[in-house]
Amino acid sequence: MNRVYFDHAATTRTDPRVLEAMLPFLSETFGNPSSVHDVGQEARAAVEAARKRVADFIGARPDEIVFTSSGTEADNFAIKGLAAAAQKKGNHIITSSVEHHAVLHSCKKLEKQGFQVTYLPADGYGMVNPEDVAKAILPSTVLISVMHANNEVGTIQPIAETSRIARERGIVFHTDAVATVGSIPVDVNRLGVDLLSLAGHQFYGPKGIGALYIRHGVRIAPFIDGGIQENGRRAGTENVPAIVGLAKAVEVAEQEMGPAAQSCKKLRDTMEAGIKEHIQYVRVNGHPENRLPGHLSICVQYIEGESMVLFLNMEGFAASSGSTCSSKALKASHVLTAMGVPPDVAQGSLLFTLGRENRMEDVEYFLKTFPPIVERLREMSPLYGDMKKKKKQ
Amino acid sequence: MNRVYFDHAATTRTDPRVLEAMLPFLSETFGNPSSVHDVGQEARAAVEAARKRVADFIGARPDEIVFTSSGTEADNFAIKGLAAAAQKKGNHIITSSVEHHAVLHSCKKLEKQGFQVTYLPADGYGMVNPEDVAKAILPSTVLISVMHANNEVGTIQPIAETSRIARERGIVFHTDAVATVGSIPVDVNRLGVDLLSLAGHQFYGPKGIGALYIRHGVRIAPFIDGGIQENGRRAGTENVPAIVGLAKAVEVAEQEMGPAAQSCKKLRDTMEAGIKEHIQYVRVNGHPENRLPGHLSICVQYIEGESMVLFLNMEGFAASSGSTCSSKALKASHVLTAMGVPPDVAQGSLLFTLGRENRMEDVEYFLKTFPPIVERLREMSPLYGDMKKKKKQ
Repeated sequence: MNRVYFDHAATTRTDPRVLEAMLPFLSETFGNPSSVHDVGQEARAAVEAARKRVADFIGARPDEIVFTSSGTEADNFAIKGLAAAAQKKGNHIITSSVEHHAVLHSCKKLEKQGFQVTYLPADGYGMVNPEDVAKAILPSTVLISVMHANNEVGTIQPIAETSRIARERGIVFHTDAVATVGSIPVDVNRLGVDLLSLAGHQFYGPKGIGALYIRHGVRIAPFIDGGIQENGRRAGTENVPAIVGLAKAVEVAEQEMGPAAQSCKKLRDTMEAGIKEHIQYVRVNGHPENRLPGHLSICVQYIEGESMVLFLNMEGFAASSGSTCSSKALKASHVLTAMGVPPDVAQGSLLFTLGRENRMEDVEYFLKTFPPIVERLREMSPLYGDMKKKKKQ
Repeated sequence: MNRVYFDHAATTRTDPRVLEAMLPFLSETFGNPSSVHDVGQEARAAVEAARKRVADFIGARPDEIVFTSSGTEADNFAIKGLAAAAQKKGNHIITSSVEHHAVLHSCKKLEKQGFQVTYLPADGYGMVNPEDVAKAILPSTVLISVMHANNEVGTIQPIAETSRIARERGIVFHTDAVATVGSIPVDVNRLGVDLLSLAGHQFYGPKGIGALYIRHGVRIAPFIDGGIQENGRRAGTENVPAIVGLAKAVEVAEQEMGPAAQSCKKLRDTMEAGIKEHIQYVRVNGHPENRLPGHLSICVQYIEGESMVLFLNMEGFAASSGSTCSSKALKASHVLTAMGVPPDVAQGSLLFTLGRENRMEDVEYFLKTFPPIVERLREMSPLYGDMKKKKKQ
């Protein structure tokens, strides 16, 4: 069977060039970078070269990059580490209701510890209004965290505009850029952010590696305590192969990100148009223009997202009914809810995220396969039957 | 040049069989285990098979294993997670002064948050007396954390005896078993522990992976918040290749750990005897019998540990002057200090940790190389000159 992967927001295939770069560090060059001897120092050199590569990619300095085990850890580090360091200054945090759970649940935990958190609304496209951010600022605000692009609907936020408001007030600004780094250009200075999270497996790098950008001068407490790794900011023996793999993924992205985005957008737009043409009662989520090039989030009314995922899987398509990190929870997506999508519509949510290995024939094959699946599921759906009956009356 | 690796406590070479097991998950089977489709479910199956293998190895149930990114993260999770869940019951923690910094610095952070921590002393061998633990217990004690074996001097603690005291009082017991799992038999029930940390790269598994054993019924707050991975206990996309690699390292250890320990002990004992025979003013650290089979910690008086490491490195030997996680700090080891080793003696500390690839010819070559290095360094040492002059008088 033909297998088509339309779930690049869940994870991406490790690029063969990334694996090749990692291999020496999974065999001969196995040292601990903190070891003084040659075996360790060879690993150290590779880690520092990788740090420079990752820093350059986002316009940062190498000493502003701390490697973490994931984007989630980077988000936890940013939110909890900043809160711990700033708690004498103030206890108020501003974030948005469409953030990834890594940010939202970190904020929830801080609320239990006495922090006060404002969760800003989003509009129908999932956009957070910079003016709302400005209005929410209190004298006790120490951190504002708004994601660069949403992982579910792909909406890209006006971060430069929002961060300017934070900067004018001297408030630290964090952005979760896990969905954008490696897909679209990201520069910490153009975005004007103080903290930025990224993850390797989102752009053909390995799993188990992320990074937090920490602007020089920003005070942040370590999140993982222990040894003196990462300049005392993140303890634990460095995951050298994954760090090297992340740097290679960055190198590949530098070259291929632009053309890949163009190709993804073309395929995605064809897919979106085809779906709208062949299927009735479909809602497309996310911003029409300011959207990640490979993201296509839809709600197919009267049927369940999960059922479509399973039927598509039987035909060889990998897709998702929403964020993979919370898909098992079987609740309506908090992002769609925040965007004002009614719960019964949100139940039919389906997320396709295209990547650089997808081809037009994948989309053509999909457009032949998907409408009959929807038809079949709707035939089995009492909701759809009821709606049709009502229409006839 | 012949290269001899005597630094297995810093990290170990990834076993080629481990790498081979990981490779499919660094290429074709790249899915996110939380994805509902086949690509994800193949990864899920591998993660759950790995969980069972790791659980079996230490006498646990699969649902008692949570994968982490390192032993350090597992220690942070155990200490901070337990403290967060138990803070309404009490705010007192008992640990020892010879713990790894991952435990000690986690405790230090909790002290800032209002916890009270008792750091128990150790005897001259690095042993923590179970009676001292019993005496330190307060009505507010919620956690006792004593390591299984010390990473610097190799002393193995009487954990079963100590944990019994905790159990009788209904206090949760954690052991940092990063230095023991994969080297000597570890069984959570025989040890009687509630929480246990382990790390893959300590026994020929990959870097970037560890685990925390959490006994069924023990309440512990998540440390990394976000998605619903690991049953909601550790957020972040699973590091599938490293999890599979950890399980393979466990499988290899099941077969080879016993013979490797015998071989290491024989080589280590030969090395220890040879050093004592050829070099004066040497102190051997750690317990004479209850010690990890590959550990040889010594203090060579009148010279610096770091200098010996560098000179040995030039001759092809990889060794350490202490814990790799803190070696750059250039302070006397907190472990040796706790054991009552005077600072000037502790300065000359040197740690050799043998592994399963070491051979008798490595030891023979070492015993030819090392004494002249010590002689040369002592000739340059004013301290040694002074001592000799005094002796002559």
